[in-house]
Amino acid sequence: MSGKRIGEESDMVSGKRIGEESDMVSGYVHKVGVPPKQSLLKELKFTLKETFFHDDPLRPFRDKSVPKKAWLGIQALFPILDWGRHYKFHMFKGDLIAGLTIASLCIPQDIGYSKLANLDPQFDSSFVPPLIYAIMGSSRDIAIGPVAVVSLLLGSMLQNQIDPKHKHEYQRLAFTATFFAGITQFALGFFRLGFLIDFLSHAAIVGFMAGAAITISLQQLKGFLGIKTSKFTKKTDIVSVMRSVWTTAHHGVTNSYGLGWNWETIVIGGSFLAFLLFAKYIGKKNRKLFWFPAIAPLLSIIISTFFVFITHAEKKGVQIVNHIERGINPSSLHEIHFTGSYVGTGFRIGVVAGIIALTEAVAIGRTFAAMKDYHLDGNKEMVALGTMNVVGSMTSCYVATGSFSRSAVNYMAGCNTAVSNIVMSFVVFLTLEFITPLFKYTPNAILASIIISAVVGLFDYEAIILIWKIDKFDFVACMGAFFGVVFISVEIGLLVAVAISFAKILLQVTRPRTAVLGKIPRTTVYRNIQQYPEATKVPGVVIVRVDSAIYFSNSNYIRERILRLMADEEEQLKENNLPRIQYLIVEMSPVTDIDTSGIHALEDLHKTLQKRDVQLVLANPGQAVLDKLHTSTFTITVGYDKIFLTVGDAVMTLAPKMEP
Amino acid sequence: MSGKRIGEESDMVSGKRIGEESDMVSGYVHKVGVPPKQSLLKELKFTLKETFFHDDPLRPFRDKSVPKKAWLGIQALFPILDWGRHYKFHMFKGDLIAGLTIASLCIPQDIGYSKLANLDPQFDSSFVPPLIYAIMGSSRDIAIGPVAVVSLLLGSMLQNQIDPKHKHEYQRLAFTATFFAGITQFALGFFRLGFLIDFLSHAAIVGFMAGAAITISLQQLKGFLGIKTSKFTKKTDIVSVMRSVWTTAHHGVTNSYGLGWNWETIVIGGSFLAFLLFAKYIGKKNRKLFWFPAIAPLLSIIISTFFVFITHAEKKGVQIVNHIERGINPSSLHEIHFTGSYVGTGFRIGVVAGIIALTEAVAIGRTFAAMKDYHLDGNKEMVALGTMNVVGSMTSCYVATGSFSRSAVNYMAGCNTAVSNIVMSFVVFLTLEFITPLFKYTPNAILASIIISAVVGLFDYEAIILIWKIDKFDFVACMGAFFGVVFISVEIGLLVAVAISFAKILLQVTRPRTAVLGKIPRTTVYRNIQQYPEATKVPGVVIVRVDSAIYFSNSNYIRERILRLMADEEEQLKENNLPRIQYLIVEMSPVTDIDTSGIHALEDLHKTLQKRDVQLVLANPGQAVLDKLHTSTFTITVGYDKIFLTVGDAVMTLAPKMEP
Repeated sequence: MSGKRIGEESDMVSGKRIGEESDMVSGYVHKVGVPPKQSLLKELKFTLKETFFHDDPLRPFRDKSVPKKAWLGIQALFPILDWGRHYKFHMFKGDLIAGLTIASLCIPQDIGYSKLANLDPQFDSSFVPPLIYAIMGSSRDIAIGPVAVVSLLLGSMLQNQIDPKHKHEYQRLAFTATFFAGITQFALGFFRLGFLIDFLSHAAIVGFMAGAAITISLQQLKGFLGIKTSKFTKKTDIVSVMRSVWTTAHHGVTNSYGLGWNWETIVIGGSFLAFLLFAKYIGKKNRKLFWFPAIAPLLSIIISTFFVFITHAEKKGVQIVNHIERGINPSSLHEIHFTGSYVGTGFRIGVVAGIIALTEAVAIGRTFAAMKDYHLDGNKEMVALGTMNVVGSMTSCYVATGSFSRSAVNYMAGCNTAVSNIVMSFVVFLTLEFITPLFKYTPNAILASIIISAVVGLFDYEAIILIWKIDKFDFVACMGAFFGVVFISVEIGLLVAVAISFAKILLQVTRPRTAVLGKIPRTTVYRNIQQYPEATKVPGVVIVRVDSAIYFSNSNYIRERILRLMADEEEQLKENNLPRIQYLIVEMSPVTDIDTSGIHALEDLHKTLQKRDVQLVLANPGQAVLDKLHTSTFTITVGYDKIFLTVGDAVMTLAPKMEP
Repeated sequence: MSGKRIGEESDMVSGKRIGEESDMVSGYVHKVGVPPKQSLLKELKFTLKETFFHDDPLRPFRDKSVPKKAWLGIQALFPILDWGRHYKFHMFKGDLIAGLTIASLCIPQDIGYSKLANLDPQFDSSFVPPLIYAIMGSSRDIAIGPVAVVSLLLGSMLQNQIDPKHKHEYQRLAFTATFFAGITQFALGFFRLGFLIDFLSHAAIVGFMAGAAITISLQQLKGFLGIKTSKFTKKTDIVSVMRSVWTTAHHGVTNSYGLGWNWETIVIGGSFLAFLLFAKYIGKKNRKLFWFPAIAPLLSIIISTFFVFITHAEKKGVQIVNHIERGINPSSLHEIHFTGSYVGTGFRIGVVAGIIALTEAVAIGRTFAAMKDYHLDGNKEMVALGTMNVVGSMTSCYVATGSFSRSAVNYMAGCNTAVSNIVMSFVVFLTLEFITPLFKYTPNAILASIIISAVVGLFDYEAIILIWKIDKFDFVACMGAFFGVVFISVEIGLLVAVAISFAKILLQVTRPRTAVLGKIPRTTVYRNIQQYPEATKVPGVVIVRVDSAIYFSNSNYIRERILRLMADEEEQLKENNLPRIQYLIVEMSPVTDIDTSGIHALEDLHKTLQKRDVQLVLANPGQAVLDKLHTSTFTITVGYDKIFLTVGDAVMTLAPKMEP
């Protein structure tokens, strides 16, 4: 294709310049630019780059020698080699305090979360994974460990497959799922498909999390009311759970040894829950006291355990942790199913859990990176998180990820680097090795209280209200996810969220907006007359803006929509005895691309307009569009002199030629 | 929200007007319009209307009395009541000639197509369905009947379920599938979901049709070479078929009674195929001779049948139709499976066949409607086609739809209304009732030749070349569908086409384009500097245009992309010792909508920029976007005085305030 400028043949109104400084010109029509056509290879390279390498991860490697490149590559994989060299002692102070604070928060949480996942408390994911992340991750603020939502999701999906009573088989499937969760995360990052997690919209996640908070809290009623596990439903939906709670209530609150509620448990749980929520409130009121809610759980555990130990409340029906093994996580490589029928099941569960875990970690990482203004490569993060979970699955850990509450504490406690994770990991190691047996007398009700107080923040009603105000469709997605989780199951809620998000995308690509433009007084700017009621229409001309790329999914809609806008206009003109429409100007600025279906639609539109003696005019077609219109010879069909740089140019050029 | 205009607080540069006529003003900054907020109900109504009723089907009903409305409603359902009243005798002349011409084309085709669907030739879909369509359809040019691609699709999907040898069971499933195809079409139209068929892109359809043409032709090799059906593969992929052809060839061409090729058949088939292709060529060369290719098939049938009858070639191994029943289609209502295991199978096959049939009919309808400039309601058409197939399934017809070749002949023969379909239907009725037994001696090879010559046009190599030139991604979709059909199966080809089309949509919504803008000399217009190399950048300012709505699926990409563009810019500035970036202007014209994720991304962007002491400026946010930015208070975060009507206004206002 020749690089000749379209418009060269057109009637050009010679410009007279007015004022050198203001660069304002009247009556000057600039030509529409057609850049030289790019070669196929170049085009393909560009598309691939924008799709998978839009963040230009190889930028630092540019113009470097080979050994330097190799060193940079190793550093890219293990960022600790980079920041570790600049690590200073004064930074360690902050990291130490932050590490100790999050350790005190994580120990009680971990015991509770492992219960959510129906696993024994010694399978602690806060020892190995944070170490791996500290070596490979690039976020400075994230704190790694198990999180409530993933634990619940994993627990509920696993128990659909194997009854948790069959401990060993259940554990094996849990490690298998964790392994595949890691593989999924690694693969998404490695193949630079990280953008796929963006398909879970913010609104859907808010709804999902709020639903999960309710579901998790409901699950805690069991421990909170002292109901025996065997009598409680395995389902997570609100109806089943409340029915279980109701049924057991009939066995009597006073029945200390029996099947129903246990008043001692309720008193212990209730008072500590009140304490924890109060601590949270204090921490929110005064940001300097952030450490108070952070250590409150550990404090509660120490006090309540001591209390039970002294009073032997466990003999009054207060359920305690009782059995807890000492020692660090053993190897579990041989436990993972690599063959057999459980591979498929484990894979499926792993993919779902891995993606949800990623969503949380990446969201947290991005938030803190934006706050401290450092760059975070989402795909690299995924590789780090994936490796961490693969290693975790081989060392008796289940899916770990970035925890929002812990990361916030980490940030507020003044962490500087991932060293705080190493400190936490070390404290957890000491705990596992020496202190664990002391948790024997910890009442289950305390764990329930800790979990409830931890997930209460997931129910972000302010965000829900904001979503309602901003975007009604987002609100539907949010509520769909919420009610799906609360009334059916965690997986269904997730499915609903994804489905609604996709429906939104489909709606976006099939039903783009169009607008009729008018001239804003005292300017040559043409804008939507609905947004600018003062804008005036040009007699004999209909100006339509199409607000989307024209693709097969919307080309027919756009064509029909434009014709309908014209019909509306004609009706009005007839009523007011105004002259007929002679030009249809399509403002193409927002039309970023067009495909063969789109060109067909334009050709059909042109044919229809010709029958009606209306001339089609295009304003400001972009680079890609103009290329394709040119290749398909549609530019010749329309006429080069009917393509303008702006709507203003088009009106100025065509107005004098109109029939009176 | 108050309807107050954003920008009222802003520093306004007072405009001095230059020239009343040209309406050109320098230094005048217009305010960005914030229309009064719409109520929720109104907004919802608008969205629903645009999604499902964008073509405003109730427009004619507006301001009419109730009986008038009822009459219009009946007319809308049965358009024959409308156009029938204005029907004139002079129109009948054209319709009669067109009807006779398409009848002569359809009779031989129908016998061949029923073979493709593995059905007996007496199940003719050109009698009942055209009658129903004539009453309910609104296209004036479409000619109804079975088509090659749908027959092949139906045949290949049905024989995967039931061996066609079990005639009765096979027929029952065929009617069941036809019934559900009709129900699918009806439902899509009735619930105004017709836009869903737009998800099959033009490119995918071209590829699919070309592949189907190859597959159908390959299937005809059997009849063309005189190979016995029992020796031929049931698969449709090219490898299996060519292996079958090759294997049977070893049995010898000269073996007249045996299992291999039959030379008499090849001679008859070959010569008539040459004749048919020649007729097609003549018709294409001289448009006035369009009737010649249209009657050529019937002519071939008459001549060859007579020839076989005289020479008794059937005793030399030339296979003939042999068994053909006389009489019009019997009722088949009791044959349809409404219960049992075949309902699901029939439903699945029906949905696929119904949608493919719709795609063809709607594409044809649209093409001719655009050529003659009349309005065609896609959803109403679907209701008509659906009803037609439901009734068809009860009268021993299989899926019928609009046939491209027949409709083209119909159009060229001068049809005026759907009366030509009625004429054709009447001729088919007479044929079925009286002439059918004469087809007993028709050689199968002639039917094969007729089908090959009919589908040869489906292989539209010119369209494929054009697709290659215009859009490489479309070409991939096209080839995916083509190779899927040719090398695997019709269904897989279809699946590939849909999958690639969806991938394209996902790419569109996750990776929108962005562009750096520059000022076009002697104007105040800012355009992509890649398209307009003469455009100049403004020192200290980076102007970025985002070419898409900002949704959850792309918000992170857009944020990162903008930051990378800035990084690129900064690098350049450093190299040339130019002043640092002070403003980032985001041109929002193409940003038609934003959701909560998008607002979050903008907030993150704003935070990052603040850290770098760069001011975020927005130019021309649209109505929906501004509403949502306002609700989320992001307009306050950015500052009202940082939102402008155009990039030109922004630069003009901000330039004087920049650091030197």
